[in-house]
Amino acid sequence: MANSQLVSGLQSIAGERFVLWKDYDLMLYEYDGSIDKARPSAVVMPSTAEQVSDIVKLCNRLGVPVTPRGAGTGLSGGCLPEHDAVLIVFSKMTRILEVDVPNMRAVVEPGVVNLHLSNHIAQHGLYYVPDPSSQKACTIGGNVGENSGGPHTLIYGVTTNHVLGLEVVLPDGEIIWTGGKALDQPGYDLTGMFVGSEGTLGIVTKIVVKLTPLPEAVKTLLAVFETVEDASSTVGGIIESGVIPAALEMMDNLSVQAVEKSVHAGYPTDAGAVLLIEVEGLKETVDGLVEAAASVCRRNNAREVRVAKDARERNLLWAGRKGAFGAMGRLSPDFYVMDGVVPRNTLPEVLAGIERISQKYGLRIANVFHAGDGNLHPLVLWDSDHPGEEQRVRDAGVEVMQIVAEVGGALTGEHGIGSEKRDIMGLFFSEDDLTTMRWLKQALDPTGVCNPGKLFPTPGRCIKPRPGRMPVMGW
Amino acid sequence: MANSQLVSGLQSIAGERFVLWKDYDLMLYEYDGSIDKARPSAVVMPSTAEQVSDIVKLCNRLGVPVTPRGAGTGLSGGCLPEHDAVLIVFSKMTRILEVDVPNMRAVVEPGVVNLHLSNHIAQHGLYYVPDPSSQKACTIGGNVGENSGGPHTLIYGVTTNHVLGLEVVLPDGEIIWTGGKALDQPGYDLTGMFVGSEGTLGIVTKIVVKLTPLPEAVKTLLAVFETVEDASSTVGGIIESGVIPAALEMMDNLSVQAVEKSVHAGYPTDAGAVLLIEVEGLKETVDGLVEAAASVCRRNNAREVRVAKDARERNLLWAGRKGAFGAMGRLSPDFYVMDGVVPRNTLPEVLAGIERISQKYGLRIANVFHAGDGNLHPLVLWDSDHPGEEQRVRDAGVEVMQIVAEVGGALTGEHGIGSEKRDIMGLFFSEDDLTTMRWLKQALDPTGVCNPGKLFPTPGRCIKPRPGRMPVMGW
Repeated sequence: MANSQLVSGLQSIAGERFVLWKDYDLMLYEYDGSIDKARPSAVVMPSTAEQVSDIVKLCNRLGVPVTPRGAGTGLSGGCLPEHDAVLIVFSKMTRILEVDVPNMRAVVEPGVVNLHLSNHIAQHGLYYVPDPSSQKACTIGGNVGENSGGPHTLIYGVTTNHVLGLEVVLPDGEIIWTGGKALDQPGYDLTGMFVGSEGTLGIVTKIVVKLTPLPEAVKTLLAVFETVEDASSTVGGIIESGVIPAALEMMDNLSVQAVEKSVHAGYPTDAGAVLLIEVEGLKETVDGLVEAAASVCRRNNAREVRVAKDARERNLLWAGRKGAFGAMGRLSPDFYVMDGVVPRNTLPEVLAGIERISQKYGLRIANVFHAGDGNLHPLVLWDSDHPGEEQRVRDAGVEVMQIVAEVGGALTGEHGIGSEKRDIMGLFFSEDDLTTMRWLKQALDPTGVCNPGKLFPTPGRCIKPRPGRMPVMGW
Repeated sequence: MANSQLVSGLQSIAGERFVLWKDYDLMLYEYDGSIDKARPSAVVMPSTAEQVSDIVKLCNRLGVPVTPRGAGTGLSGGCLPEHDAVLIVFSKMTRILEVDVPNMRAVVEPGVVNLHLSNHIAQHGLYYVPDPSSQKACTIGGNVGENSGGPHTLIYGVTTNHVLGLEVVLPDGEIIWTGGKALDQPGYDLTGMFVGSEGTLGIVTKIVVKLTPLPEAVKTLLAVFETVEDASSTVGGIIESGVIPAALEMMDNLSVQAVEKSVHAGYPTDAGAVLLIEVEGLKETVDGLVEAAASVCRRNNAREVRVAKDARERNLLWAGRKGAFGAMGRLSPDFYVMDGVVPRNTLPEVLAGIERISQKYGLRIANVFHAGDGNLHPLVLWDSDHPGEEQRVRDAGVEVMQIVAEVGGALTGEHGIGSEKRDIMGLFFSEDDLTTMRWLKQALDPTGVCNPGKLFPTPGRCIKPRPGRMPVMGW
């Protein structure tokens, strides 16, 4: 519940219509795509960087923190307004400010929906690469906050590889520019530091992104395997062959079953695992890539390799993958999506470990993931009507992340830390690492106004980090 | 000249043999590849991260700064030990600690020579992408400090895109790890912050790098043009066609003349400009790329497009490009290499501006550069025996960088700021930008022990930055 000084201040900055403060309205903003929730003290929808700056200055004066929010599709609680923060929602800052076709750059506001940008520039033969599965709804500002990936980031990299410059409102309300249109700017890489910082260092108000030529030709393959092991070996084999697919996705049997019940994508429901492989290039080159990838599949005992004949077949294959999370509703009333990265060659070992955790907790876990870069997405199926089940789900999740840590992986590939994983940062970072991050936080946001409760472990509630120096894990 | 407390302290850490302090020895370490020089108070060659940590702690106690140095091939003065710094030289830390073939990662010490790594892993069909022209001598630690590029970074990105983790000795002597083997780690991107920070935030002692499969097939084309304009249009045309060459280099007439006098690479000396275009891929795909690139050349009035028939011809074409800087000695006793990045579509305008500056100052300027990413390398020919000429060269250099700033470019593509460009940072960065960078410096290195005099403008001697907020230039 907001205090009147805060509400009237916000109203005078953004206009009365664009400030929400009644409990009934605020309830709509207490969720994102994660399990957690937190209600804001007020919601404000600015339309310019200057308004954002004024809001931050007001909140500083009143001692109220701020949390930025795009479309609320995040999966780790990054945009949940903890500590009674004011939620800054970017639904009015949705302009594509510039498209520089010859240099393949665009400048956008943070509220631009990811897919809208690609649709807007398709006429120029260009697209914006990072394509989270939520790309029809999620915003580029949110993608910057969480450093989002997607199925097609295997070859071209995740958000940070496609963001070249930022306009940022700093925690004191100052507006700065970092980077620009050039690929690499000298000095400290402030742009890289803000990408993935989850709103804890400032609020992004404009984004310079790199655009990429649409591939002339795209081919999609479905490869069907009896076992997850064979599919996993194929993943490594394709990369080692020198083919870098645009996308290389794996679905295990449980995922295939869910997808077929819902999307009817034509995946064989008795498969141990399927791989969806997409290659792209020039008309002259793409058939060679298909043949090279298919032959790796066959060498690894694929029982079937199917190449989509046309756009319709291709879209159907992808509809299965992109609809996989939603399809879990056919198997279970609730599901919890996890996110971690492991070295490709540990995939069989890690998937076997996840299966053991599944049995230990009596929870079904489906695996649908970006296999090419080892980015796992275990989906834990559960039912929020069963008392105690949420805690079992969370405990199982921590055990999965322990396995990821043991094989030298990363705590998240694309969903972020947010509130979800802050207390297990110690599995992956040493006290010195976290201290170095805290120095940056302290340098930019000494009063802690920006998105409190995210990224850093909660004192007293976290898994204790290793003392001192951390050996890089896995070796 | 070193004081005895410092020297004996360094000797007890690194061993007597590995500390230099006599003037005669120190003279050898006062240069890098830039015009400037600075003599260290002592030189020390540690062999472990722990020794580096002890050296940094000792220097903190004695109030002496430290400067790290790889092979001294840098072009912007980054490793010059200003303020009587102790020079930490990595010629003993040259081990390749691990090669993880299935996951395509290696862990190296900072003194490993760039090309040694690629040679070492070639047996596994892998290489390390960033290939500065000095790659036979320069070290990976130095590359990390300066965020180096090279002719083949067009398609795969510069050093920061290939460094995934770092062991760093912080300015207080603590040893931390950032990142790891995974592509993107959560939390603040400390690895990205250290890459390109020119030793001002800490000293890197181990580096986790990404390895890349050697291309199955490589083809190199030489395209000959009557004019720089036609060559420039071809550069944009190739990228827009969807062919992303592994390398796309331009040399103007003056450069071609120098190269032919020295290397005899077979470039036509009457050409207005030549492009060296390299494409790579699978055996099945590379001919398609050659045909696509060649047809763009012909559409833009190439008078000749020559495809190297075999490795011998290919190496000869590259010998011309890689030997171009050295070949300038045939035209002039001294040359000054510049470095800046401009949007590709401004290349003709920028090159015309450089020609005007050449005439104004009566200095010949050759252009040999990474055209694909707009990374210019104007080479100003001069003679250090002519009194006053050095100042004219420096003044001409500042004017070139003013043009780069006006078209929305970047102050350096790969050579760094160092001491060379610190005082023109204001052409590209606003006071707020620099303040944000200073906050980071202050947070990590409050006493300023790490590589003083680099990156940041010298108070009172710099071009004044724009006050307040900077519009990203070029739009």
